[in-house]
Amino acid sequence: MTDYFAGIDKIRYAGPQATEALAFKWYDKDRLVLGKRMEEHLRFAVCYWHSFCWNGFDPFGYDGTFERPWHRIADPMEAAKAKLDAAFEFFAKLGAPFYCFHDRDVAPEGATPRESVENFRRIVDLMGEKQSSTGIKLLWGTANLFSHRRFMSGAATNPNPEIYALAALQVKEAMDATKRLGGENYVLWGGREGYETLLNTDLARESRQYGRFLQMAVEHKHKIGLPGYVLIEPKPREPTKHQYDYDVATVHGFLRQYGLENEVKVNIEANHATLSGHSFEHEIATAVALGLFGSLDMNRGDMQCGWDTDQFPNSLPDTALALFHVLQGGGLTHGGLNFDAKVRRQSIDAEDLFHGHVGAMDLCARALLVAERMITDGRPARELASRYAGWDGEVGKKLLSPQMSLDDVAAHALQRNVDERPVSGRQEAWENLVNDYIA
Amino acid sequence: MTDYFAGIDKIRYAGPQATEALAFKWYDKDRLVLGKRMEEHLRFAVCYWHSFCWNGFDPFGYDGTFERPWHRIADPMEAAKAKLDAAFEFFAKLGAPFYCFHDRDVAPEGATPRESVENFRRIVDLMGEKQSSTGIKLLWGTANLFSHRRFMSGAATNPNPEIYALAALQVKEAMDATKRLGGENYVLWGGREGYETLLNTDLARESRQYGRFLQMAVEHKHKIGLPGYVLIEPKPREPTKHQYDYDVATVHGFLRQYGLENEVKVNIEANHATLSGHSFEHEIATAVALGLFGSLDMNRGDMQCGWDTDQFPNSLPDTALALFHVLQGGGLTHGGLNFDAKVRRQSIDAEDLFHGHVGAMDLCARALLVAERMITDGRPARELASRYAGWDGEVGKKLLSPQMSLDDVAAHALQRNVDERPVSGRQEAWENLVNDYIA
Amino acid sequence: MTDYFAGIDKIRYAGPQATEALAFKWYDKDRLVLGKRMEEHLRFAVCYWHSFCWNGFDPFGYDGTFERPWHRIADPMEAAKAKLDAAFEFFAKLGAPFYCFHDRDVAPEGATPRESVENFRRIVDLMGEKQSSTGIKLLWGTANLFSHRRFMSGAATNPNPEIYALAALQVKEAMDATKRLGGENYVLWGGREGYETLLNTDLARESRQYGRFLQMAVEHKHKIGLPGYVLIEPKPREPTKHQYDYDVATVHGFLRQYGLENEVKVNIEANHATLSGHSFEHEIATAVALGLFGSLDMNRGDMQCGWDTDQFPNSLPDTALALFHVLQGGGLTHGGLNFDAKVRRQSIDAEDLFHGHVGAMDLCARALLVAERMITDGRPARELASRYAGWDGEVGKKLLSPQMSLDDVAAHALQRNVDERPVSGRQEAWENLVNDYIA
Amino acid sequence: MTDYFAGIDKIRYAGPQATEALAFKWYDKDRLVLGKRMEEHLRFAVCYWHSFCWNGFDPFGYDGTFERPWHRIADPMEAAKAKLDAAFEFFAKLGAPFYCFHDRDVAPEGATPRESVENFRRIVDLMGEKQSSTGIKLLWGTANLFSHRRFMSGAATNPNPEIYALAALQVKEAMDATKRLGGENYVLWGGREGYETLLNTDLARESRQYGRFLQMAVEHKHKIGLPGYVLIEPKPREPTKHQYDYDVATVHGFLRQYGLENEVKVNIEANHATLSGHSFEHEIATAVALGLFGSLDMNRGDMQCGWDTDQFPNSLPDTALALFHVLQGGGLTHGGLNFDAKVRRQSIDAEDLFHGHVGAMDLCARALLVAERMITDGRPARELASRYAGWDGEVGKKLLSPQMSLDDVAAHALQRNVDERPVSGRQEAWENLVNDYIA
Repeated sequence: MTDYFAGIDKIRYAGPQATEALAFKWYDKDRLVLGKRMEEHLRFAVCYWHSFCWNGFDPFGYDGTFERPWHRIADPMEAAKAKLDAAFEFFAKLGAPFYCFHDRDVAPEGATPRESVENFRRIVDLMGEKQSSTGIKLLWGTANLFSHRRFMSGAATNPNPEIYALAALQVKEAMDATKRLGGENYVLWGGREGYETLLNTDLARESRQYGRFLQMAVEHKHKIGLPGYVLIEPKPREPTKHQYDYDVATVHGFLRQYGLENEVKVNIEANHATLSGHSFEHEIATAVALGLFGSLDMNRGDMQCGWDTDQFPNSLPDTALALFHVLQGGGLTHGGLNFDAKVRRQSIDAEDLFHGHVGAMDLCARALLVAERMITDGRPARELASRYAGWDGEVGKKLLSPQMSLDDVAAHALQRNVDERPVSGRQEAWENLVNDYIA
Repeated sequence: MTDYFAGIDKIRYAGPQATEALAFKWYDKDRLVLGKRMEEHLRFAVCYWHSFCWNGFDPFGYDGTFERPWHRIADPMEAAKAKLDAAFEFFAKLGAPFYCFHDRDVAPEGATPRESVENFRRIVDLMGEKQSSTGIKLLWGTANLFSHRRFMSGAATNPNPEIYALAALQVKEAMDATKRLGGENYVLWGGREGYETLLNTDLARESRQYGRFLQMAVEHKHKIGLPGYVLIEPKPREPTKHQYDYDVATVHGFLRQYGLENEVKVNIEANHATLSGHSFEHEIATAVALGLFGSLDMNRGDMQCGWDTDQFPNSLPDTALALFHVLQGGGLTHGGLNFDAKVRRQSIDAEDLFHGHVGAMDLCARALLVAERMITDGRPARELASRYAGWDGEVGKKLLSPQMSLDDVAAHALQRNVDERPVSGRQEAWENLVNDYIA
Repeated sequence: MTDYFAGIDKIRYAGPQATEALAFKWYDKDRLVLGKRMEEHLRFAVCYWHSFCWNGFDPFGYDGTFERPWHRIADPMEAAKAKLDAAFEFFAKLGAPFYCFHDRDVAPEGATPRESVENFRRIVDLMGEKQSSTGIKLLWGTANLFSHRRFMSGAATNPNPEIYALAALQVKEAMDATKRLGGENYVLWGGREGYETLLNTDLARESRQYGRFLQMAVEHKHKIGLPGYVLIEPKPREPTKHQYDYDVATVHGFLRQYGLENEVKVNIEANHATLSGHSFEHEIATAVALGLFGSLDMNRGDMQCGWDTDQFPNSLPDTALALFHVLQGGGLTHGGLNFDAKVRRQSIDAEDLFHGHVGAMDLCARALLVAERMITDGRPARELASRYAGWDGEVGKKLLSPQMSLDDVAAHALQRNVDERPVSGRQEAWENLVNDYIA
Repeated sequence: MTDYFAGIDKIRYAGPQATEALAFKWYDKDRLVLGKRMEEHLRFAVCYWHSFCWNGFDPFGYDGTFERPWHRIADPMEAAKAKLDAAFEFFAKLGAPFYCFHDRDVAPEGATPRESVENFRRIVDLMGEKQSSTGIKLLWGTANLFSHRRFMSGAATNPNPEIYALAALQVKEAMDATKRLGGENYVLWGGREGYETLLNTDLARESRQYGRFLQMAVEHKHKIGLPGYVLIEPKPREPTKHQYDYDVATVHGFLRQYGLENEVKVNIEANHATLSGHSFEHEIATAVALGLFGSLDMNRGDMQCGWDTDQFPNSLPDTALALFHVLQGGGLTHGGLNFDAKVRRQSIDAEDLFHGHVGAMDLCARALLVAERMITDGRPARELASRYAGWDGEVGKKLLSPQMSLDDVAAHALQRNVDERPVSGRQEAWENLVNDYIA
């Protein structure tokens, strides 16, 4: 037990009428929703980096604001252990079943590649012990290929092949650690896989490097027997001016180019979705339609800020629509709802870490209940099917058949020779309908 | 001869020192640039719609501002003929070798599909005559599948299969007309192929419809023997909230999904590029890297306005970089530089149409000379190659070989056991270098 | 009675459990909220233009989609009368107490200024009769100084003084009509008061013109005894590239420059707020803090679209926060909640007009109940006061006193010579608290 | 002499045909432009912070990339001295006449307020010596009220009055140091004067605090006799979600509210301008029109990135238009052109600092020559005057006179009873004209 969260008890479910701030009002993990326990639906994960590594720094305040006790420990391995204690105490008190980490979040970079590997392996042992003693599980692991200066011009897409190799070393070790810790999935976020200026960039070369790198990761996944997905996390820009995994549709093309469309899924983040010009539910629905849906980062942005604010979700309607699309797509299997979210840098108290996560979990639980109502009621699905009913009829089937040429379809229209009156899209009625499910 | 452009003579090349506003200062069509005539490099085209169909209306001014004489003619076929006279007089006086059109730009919608087809065919005959008498050629044709209310919920992606068939009829007729007029390419811009709200939209269904529709168009191209490309024109949104052909990378995935990546190219518009969060040169370079580069719409946006302003290009550095990437990609073959641009709605004089086009052609010519200097000098290409030289060496080739597993590459790094110092990206030096070519 | 809304009865309050789409579930106009009837709190108004004048056209579809019966009547005065019948039937069936209009919405432009004035006055008489027979009241009137081509380069800020005079004529007539119809307020939205390019624009001149124009309007308001406010409606751009009434803060500076800060208020639109880079509640809170709060246009934008989408509000949390700030600022007095909203152009049925308005009124009513809970509970206000409590103490009062110089305040800090530890901003706890009021 | 810039000589003017990268091709400081030396026109300044304090860190790479030697010195005062040596060596070799600094850039925060003051005063002495020995002058000083965690919720607008006092102490010391060093101006950039969430914010209170704070600074300026301006630097957001000094127009209203409109000017940054939705030249022209123009930060943003990228200017047309407006407004008097710009974090070599500044100075010099041509030629000014000529005539003067009521002006229009035909805005011709001056 650390002192850091000493005053805070395990968060309990207290129901919607509860007045205490640090209790779940909606997240009742054993409540059945569409035949499955809430906890199994939502598969919440806490991220290690924002909550335990970040010190509250921002581009205009290098020194940070948080002053976490483990940041003051000089020896990096001792600091890593203290951080680990705090993190698992937090996970356990919060009651989220999963967590996620980057290699460099948990163990310090060493003086040489070998030393880094050794540091990491030692801490991974301790993580395994912590998992055993707390029952907390690993949703996914990943490697930090963006913070160290060696990766400033990319990891897999670096102009220097030796840096590509160093990146491969980190990914291999992180995948192996993920396997060892019983993690289900492995995530790649290409924070520096992109460019700052097209002037010094060879797009075709960097694409080939990135494609091969990803193929190797997929092959390794099969080799070591990771049960879940290799996940790419799209983001349009930041830190780079342009990131190659811009959005789900971009990743789709890239995967097909390298023959990986049946091997790799996407980890969609709400904030990255909106930065790329899409709604969160658009990215989810697109991934579902393309067979690429994997996992979610639930942190939202601020639509007035042009950068990643990584805020905890707090809009019930937005979150309900996102989860509705998840459920329509079959729900989460290997993936989960990860809070890649950070408390605001003014939220400097230990308690604030709980406020962020408890509020977000409650919001998701409440949103799940809205989505459940939408599905149970069935009206959204019925109205959607009815809108496209013509395509399920004889004419629709005929027109879409691969036997029909453009001449044939044109001839159909010309012979019929009547214009076709459009039918109302009823958007306002749809929006009202959705609001009726909000409660 | 119409009266509309009566006071304006054929635009001539007068050289950089000329003081007259309506003369070319840089566009000297026979000047050799990298061994090819300027006219062949640039392949300028004027668009019919903005310059001859639009009346200056905008969302806050329905009645328009231009009062073109042909808009006052009551009989639609007579109006179409007067418009045709004016358009070809303009093309000829301007001296652009090409033009582009939508079916409904040139001929009015009829009371029935058949009547529309007949109207169109009659005007296409007249267009052929105009082409013959003026020597003006058709760069590409296209069908307007977005203005009529029947297409309000999409053309190929409409929930109603009969509307899909009506769209196919228009495309077939427009492709046939393009062939008949000696046009090289056929463009599809999916202005309404997208959605206003995801609530009433079935993405997977609409994708299948759109994929099949495009396959039919490609098959038809081969059937009728159109020499150039079928081109998709990406745009992220507007008029719809989300358009399926979001950007080049999105189109890339879509083409691969439907087996069309070797059949279809992209027509990239500067304004659409920036609306999708990319620079114009990014979209060009991406298309080149993916083997999808086809043609360009040169009209720019206003980076402070979140909608399509379709302005004539006027930034020399931006246009130079765009053309540099075009030349690096092998230059224009079937494609061209189309001005899908409109004079501002306050630019109500006939002369303003000339100012817009003459200035833009001059700017492109001047930008071509900048790009020529970049290529002739060779330094940009040399510095780029040098940045990636490591990948052409033994280590680079080995690491990227498909024989190497993640374990192998990781072992290489671990065994070497040295960190790798990064090398400066030299962005400021690059930017200064480019400015040195501006003159 | 027209035929247009024939199948739709007067909308009634049916309670939250009602399943019929066209009934109020939350808007119970006589329900007391903080001691005032809902209807008095919300003061709903329907706008004439979007619902009765717009034909569904957009920049890519000139001909529109709606085919309202009155748009097919050739004689403009007869069309105006048919439109008036339909509009008042709609207002009455909907049960909104107010409406708003532009001069040109209700009566057609004539061949001369005098004829326009006469057309307008004749229809205003009919409007008065309609108001009497239905009990519907006028929230505000305004003049359309942006649609006609004469205003393409501005109305008050036009380079031509005669156009300034024609604008003044319209404003005078519209203010007089507003007074005659018992309207409370007069709005100026400067859709063309701005520029397309700074190159041809003299900012200082146009500011003086606009300042004097507004002074005249204020003087006229006093002269004719309009009881409510002269309201400026800020918008950053669109149709122009830059609009002079960019946002509330910009209007504030302008009003002070021309001595009007105690005479003019703002009419804040949600969609204009977000286009200017602010949240709706930011603009409301700013106006309240500056003493400029007047009235609201409740229509929202789409945060992924960079233009005015004018959608009906449908986010309960966003609307609740907006109304919370309205209530904190003392509530609406002369102003109201106007739906300057349009049904989507695919929503072509008469019924869709009702879906849009009924859903929006219900949402606002429900949001009012959330805001009521926030105020009744009192915790938000208490926590805010406590955060700033230091400024109400002795030290705070002393430091802020005008007697203290920079030297004095600096000396206080230097003498005390202790650093000051910051206190958590508790944003996540705040956001959770607000969500607790949503029900 | 440090070793850091050992291989680089003083940058010399070598003319447009020079091929060496590190020479001025356009910046010939003694060249006369409109009767004044280039150096006097441009008044270039280098900023201390980005070039000498920043280590290349970004939100995804805390450890930075630059590894400047002075960042490795453990003792903070010794590090400050080494940094000072490097900075002045750079200033001198570059040949910019001015520099700018924040208090905390040059001297380290101490353990107590007093110690911080003492550290600062000791370094200021050394700065004075450096200025004397090199001839480099101070353009403006400022205080860093945004990096330290105590200011996380604002400095002047902090909820805690003691933090307001600590901010006042820093401002007083920084103003006094500026005076002592012969600096002309004092800048306030309110990086944390704004809010993260409106929920915990009292706008009216914070405005009063900020207003009083600024009044004190102005009073202090007069007391100590600083010759130039107190300057506010507008920025819309980042680091905060909303910053109170949003843009020039917002600052204008704020200054008038606190009676400071004749006392305070603005320091306009290109990047901040575009982040606020305006062009750089718009903000300059607005400041000129309002009598608030003071000084410029020349660093640009990337229009595709929604955050402050602080890049060196590299667009000749954009910079030319900015300087044209500066010259039209009377040119720089006390202000200057400061490069608040940072080399990209991949530009890790000492040489890159020179590439950034040399290229930018050259670009500004070249842009000045374009602006000179625009003014010497006179056509832009003549065409602008002609556009508004009607307002200088009898009718224009009459209509704008304060004696005319709305009734009078309306009567003028009604009596005249003719519509007024609009005149072309000629935007394309204007844009072409400007391009003719680019060379």
